[in-house]
Amino acid sequence: MREITEDLLDDMARGAGILGTGGGGDPYVGKLLAREAIRRHGPVPLYSIDEVPADATVVPISTMGAPTVMLEKLPAGTEELAVLRALEAVIGRPATHIVPIEIGGMNSLIPIAAAAQAGLPLVDGDAMGRAFPEAQMVLPTLMGVRNTPMALADDKGNTLVVDAVSNHWAEKIARAACVRMGCQLSSADTVLRGSQLRDGLVPATLTLAEDLGRAVRLARAAHSSPVGAALAVLDGTELFAGKVVDVERRTTGGFARGTARLESSHGALELSFQNEHLLASRGGRTVATTPDLICVLDTESGEPVTTEALRYGLRVTVIGAPCDPRWRTPEGLELAGPRYFGYDCDYEPLAGRPS
Amino acid sequence: MREITEDLLDDMARGAGILGTGGGGDPYVGKLLAREAIRRHGPVPLYSIDEVPADATVVPISTMGAPTVMLEKLPAGTEELAVLRALEAVIGRPATHIVPIEIGGMNSLIPIAAAAQAGLPLVDGDAMGRAFPEAQMVLPTLMGVRNTPMALADDKGNTLVVDAVSNHWAEKIARAACVRMGCQLSSADTVLRGSQLRDGLVPATLTLAEDLGRAVRLARAAHSSPVGAALAVLDGTELFAGKVVDVERRTTGGFARGTARLESSHGALELSFQNEHLLASRGGRTVATTPDLICVLDTESGEPVTTEALRYGLRVTVIGAPCDPRWRTPEGLELAGPRYFGYDCDYEPLAGRPS
Repeated sequence: MREITEDLLDDMARGAGILGTGGGGDPYVGKLLAREAIRRHGPVPLYSIDEVPADATVVPISTMGAPTVMLEKLPAGTEELAVLRALEAVIGRPATHIVPIEIGGMNSLIPIAAAAQAGLPLVDGDAMGRAFPEAQMVLPTLMGVRNTPMALADDKGNTLVVDAVSNHWAEKIARAACVRMGCQLSSADTVLRGSQLRDGLVPATLTLAEDLGRAVRLARAAHSSPVGAALAVLDGTELFAGKVVDVERRTTGGFARGTARLESSHGALELSFQNEHLLASRGGRTVATTPDLICVLDTESGEPVTTEALRYGLRVTVIGAPCDPRWRTPEGLELAGPRYFGYDCDYEPLAGRPS
Repeated sequence: MREITEDLLDDMARGAGILGTGGGGDPYVGKLLAREAIRRHGPVPLYSIDEVPADATVVPISTMGAPTVMLEKLPAGTEELAVLRALEAVIGRPATHIVPIEIGGMNSLIPIAAAAQAGLPLVDGDAMGRAFPEAQMVLPTLMGVRNTPMALADDKGNTLVVDAVSNHWAEKIARAACVRMGCQLSSADTVLRGSQLRDGLVPATLTLAEDLGRAVRLARAAHSSPVGAALAVLDGTELFAGKVVDVERRTTGGFARGTARLESSHGALELSFQNEHLLASRGGRTVATTPDLICVLDTESGEPVTTEALRYGLRVTVIGAPCDPRWRTPEGLELAGPRYFGYDCDYEPLAGRPS
């Protein structure tokens, strides 16, 4: 056990922004919420998966919606406790721990705020090892764990509880409500017992985010390459470095979808995203796909660039990093591989591919 | 107390179809479901409002959606008990009585099926005295009674429970989920205590539906005017008799919206509907508007013609009938008057208007 204190949040937010592969929401907003909650309620105990009792009730808390909307429509700050209480009422027992559903931007920091507000400890890990756009895209789905009951709340005080026949249906229903309720909801779903954490989570990803964020910051301070530091921590591959020359983006169906085109003297790279970067290609040839991580960093500062922040003229470096091996199984690829998202290509693991 | 037996369903369905002002869903489907449930579980006790104890827990059960969809996509027959149980779990006490939320087509007969399945008695009344398209358009809203918690269930086994900050928000959220879940959901909402029934319900409307349906049937058998019989029971006004010459209809936003044009040698009438008929006009002059009842009957048989069944060539008579007086108050008109639906006209009470 260690404690998440205010001084760790900058690094965590930076690292989570990178691991979020462009999605998960603006880490800056999440950092403000987490900082405010820690200032008010004190540091948050962070437990490794091994330290959590088998009978613990571990509740993931996250924000669902389109990051393009979250940029302008800030959470009220009351939604996290509202969904937690709504979920507890349905499952009939109190949460003992909070955990991020994904490691990615805002959604890695919102659970810190929620844990502080609820006076609960946090678990060091998440259910994706990156960020994915849809609620069923979590390792617990691969275990047969249901993501319902799913409690949702908006900034106005509306709440709903979904109980669905499949994790995909829960996503569909929640997304429809989300769009109608302002394209930003807090969610508490995919409750895990402590005994399920090893299979249901990627371990120690909050610590990874912190390490990654720190490495980037220290490299910058030492005038060495922040991108190089990120690559070293992630065991990643540089896919492209260049300038953003075109962004096509629309907020539709509860997601921020679009493409971005990068150019350099060495050619061009196209990125396709649905909240998160899902496909990187050069001249029609795929160079990286979901579920591997495709992360966009500001080339000079190493700061993460979320999909909603992509804009003409930004000089960025795109890096790829291997996903958790469970995503590379046939079941994992069916859930979050390129064909699920409608891309007509097979997944090829990133490692071992010529960069 | 009396009993609803199978032999009453034909008349009730016919009368409810007329009172539903074109909406509420196809009464034939509702009749089949009610008949099946009565055959399996026995007759349903029907209590007048005065017979219900003050501490009773009275639960309205209905189907939400677009009648155009309900025509083709039949309920599974399991949704009513699913929403009842989901609602009971949230409110923490069992229902003691079932009641229709509206008197209108399928939604007057579904509660009979639900009561039979649940082994509960039914209350003779409804929360509108007609059918309206949106969930907040009930007399309990005028009393300040919340329509949430609202339990919803689809034919696949998905359920959700909405808890909203206003009755309008509950409608918005439920409608969005409804569209995504196939445009047809069962709903249990707007729970009333027995002591609230006098203000929250229009009394004895199931009996009115039965009387109306019987009068039409008997008139037909006696070769007198079925429409005349309906007018007598409803204290109604004949607005127009003619042939349907044009129907423009679209299923959008979870509703069946559109217009129909009727012609005769005496001129033309235009009907505008959103599930229910909301406005009747002749040459741009309004002749009847919501919240008064605008009912379309087959001229020869007196059978109700729902908005989704309107089609070229049908010979119909349009009749108007006064709504419950509570809808004519400023608060009632704000909730369900013509301006709420976007029509640029004031409400003029139907009675006393030249026909």
